[in-house]
Amino acid sequence: MKATLYEGNKTFAVVEKENETPAAGEVRIKVAYCGVCGTDVHIYHGMMDQRVNIPQIIGHEMSGTVDAIGEGVTGFEVGEKVTVRPLDNRLEAESDKGFGHIAKKLKFIGIDSPGAMQQYWNVPAFTLHKLNQTTDLKLAALVEPLAVACHDVRRGRLLQGETAVVLGGGPIGLLVAMVAKSKGANVVISEVNDIRIKMAEDMGFEVVNPVKTDLVAYIEEKTNGGLADVVFEVAGVQPSLDVMTEVAGIRGRIVMVAIHGEKKPVDLFKFFWKELELIGARVYEGEDYEESIDLITKNELPFETLITAVEPLDNIQQLFEQIDTNPNGMKYLVDCQ
Amino acid sequence: MKATLYEGNKTFAVVEKENETPAAGEVRIKVAYCGVCGTDVHIYHGMMDQRVNIPQIIGHEMSGTVDAIGEGVTGFEVGEKVTVRPLDNRLEAESDKGFGHIAKKLKFIGIDSPGAMQQYWNVPAFTLHKLNQTTDLKLAALVEPLAVACHDVRRGRLLQGETAVVLGGGPIGLLVAMVAKSKGANVVISEVNDIRIKMAEDMGFEVVNPVKTDLVAYIEEKTNGGLADVVFEVAGVQPSLDVMTEVAGIRGRIVMVAIHGEKKPVDLFKFFWKELELIGARVYEGEDYEESIDLITKNELPFETLITAVEPLDNIQQLFEQIDTNPNGMKYLVDCQ
Repeated sequence: MKATLYEGNKTFAVVEKENETPAAGEVRIKVAYCGVCGTDVHIYHGMMDQRVNIPQIIGHEMSGTVDAIGEGVTGFEVGEKVTVRPLDNRLEAESDKGFGHIAKKLKFIGIDSPGAMQQYWNVPAFTLHKLNQTTDLKLAALVEPLAVACHDVRRGRLLQGETAVVLGGGPIGLLVAMVAKSKGANVVISEVNDIRIKMAEDMGFEVVNPVKTDLVAYIEEKTNGGLADVVFEVAGVQPSLDVMTEVAGIRGRIVMVAIHGEKKPVDLFKFFWKELELIGARVYEGEDYEESIDLITKNELPFETLITAVEPLDNIQQLFEQIDTNPNGMKYLVDCQ
Repeated sequence: MKATLYEGNKTFAVVEKENETPAAGEVRIKVAYCGVCGTDVHIYHGMMDQRVNIPQIIGHEMSGTVDAIGEGVTGFEVGEKVTVRPLDNRLEAESDKGFGHIAKKLKFIGIDSPGAMQQYWNVPAFTLHKLNQTTDLKLAALVEPLAVACHDVRRGRLLQGETAVVLGGGPIGLLVAMVAKSKGANVVISEVNDIRIKMAEDMGFEVVNPVKTDLVAYIEEKTNGGLADVVFEVAGVQPSLDVMTEVAGIRGRIVMVAIHGEKKPVDLFKFFWKELELIGARVYEGEDYEESIDLITKNELPFETLITAVEPLDNIQQLFEQIDTNPNGMKYLVDCQ
């Protein structure tokens, strides 16, 4: 079978590899599609060379079918469509307080151990979520990033009829906006890039370019002074941090989706004054995966539009080079079949 | 009757004033005690001259008895012990989303309108909370600041058996610690001032001086790696902001009690990584007042120790001068009887 290997120095190899029998407690999956995550791009750029085990197979946004079942695994049948929740929390401790998805000793499969950018992938059975037999396997490669969005929205306790402002219209921002819309919220995306604005508008979203329009005044008018009930900070830039505390109304919830590598100035007075909440959100829990699978299976949101290109496994090198040269791309998939 | 007037320029006058009949919807209270809030000290320092209406009677942490009842007011009897929740939310709007205590057009009685540092005080009947006939009126002047602490703890959703770290052992920090203790939490106070450390220890609290002891390591050991479930940031200084995200464990809640006048660096990565929450808390709601009254009436916590001095109304000028010269003082009361 074919597998890809990240070899460091912005280089992937495509290699022949033996198809391994699944160990006890594991399932072998015939991988259908594997999406490229921002983290995979970071790995490609060499920014995580200390964490990955070069040469390493990466990738964790995948769909596939059960191909072989290891000893002691029950509840799965060969041929069933599945996806993997790539969190290995077997070292979860009591001090993690029951939140295994962010346990201190969590291992992320596809980063800390081999990933899905290969034709067959052996994973612990507990990481599997069943897809519906009607689920499109190409769209199902979006289950993982969509589950991130489901988790973000759930952490924000967003309710039907509330106003949600999504700061940043990249892939995660758009997925958050889609999930927020699926909850019956009034969603406004704030984005500065014209191509992304056009894409979000084509998906039916209300988009504000905060460089051209006063976002706070816009939301204030739209909500008769109530401002946003929930703000999603997905952009990861200081202007978003500055506006998030302004655009949130009384008791507004701000979900911190972006990863800010260093300490940033935050208007804590506004937290006091309006009794705001800042809520951290990282990866997902089982129920987020189930919600994501349900949304992908129903396919009532413009998921297809997010897929910029699908390339075969053999073209992995060109695919990562293409991602680097096209800042307006959204979601790229590797076809592992 | 006697009243005090803040006249600007760090000056109070004690004046004779007519005892007014309460207007419709109002109650006249015979004031017993009125505590001095940090805000009153700010007013004395001239820092709120644009907001107060000089010359003005200030004060809002009070206890007293019903003295006269205005037209249309029911449910009160002359002689009943009461305290006032000094929030006038009559201009509450729909955009305040039901949170009248922090409504955009909230008026704070004793700042935006005359306060309690006088012998008789007319207030809207809806601001009254009944005390128990057994409630000590001197301690009852602490109901208002204690209600702030009840609100802070409620916002933090602190549960029995959880570990709470209170950053700052001033009057509000100690009250927060007391309320946290009343909930059955394991409370640790972080304080750098030796006199405040001694006072907190004398009250039976576990206190860490973060300059001498590594607070995070201390809490980590105490909790077997779980770290704090709830952190109360009461100190208002950058080292507290730096430590709050370190000392909070997975899904830890950080309650922002302090008022930070300008934007401050915050470790947002930790919010993402540990799924922390930052929760703003301002003043109180009715249920916080009822909880505070209950705690004061039971009097099982060292409230008395918080009272540094009680001075008669006539000595108001000396009292504020004394506060300025004694940085280790806790709570000062004006005896208005």
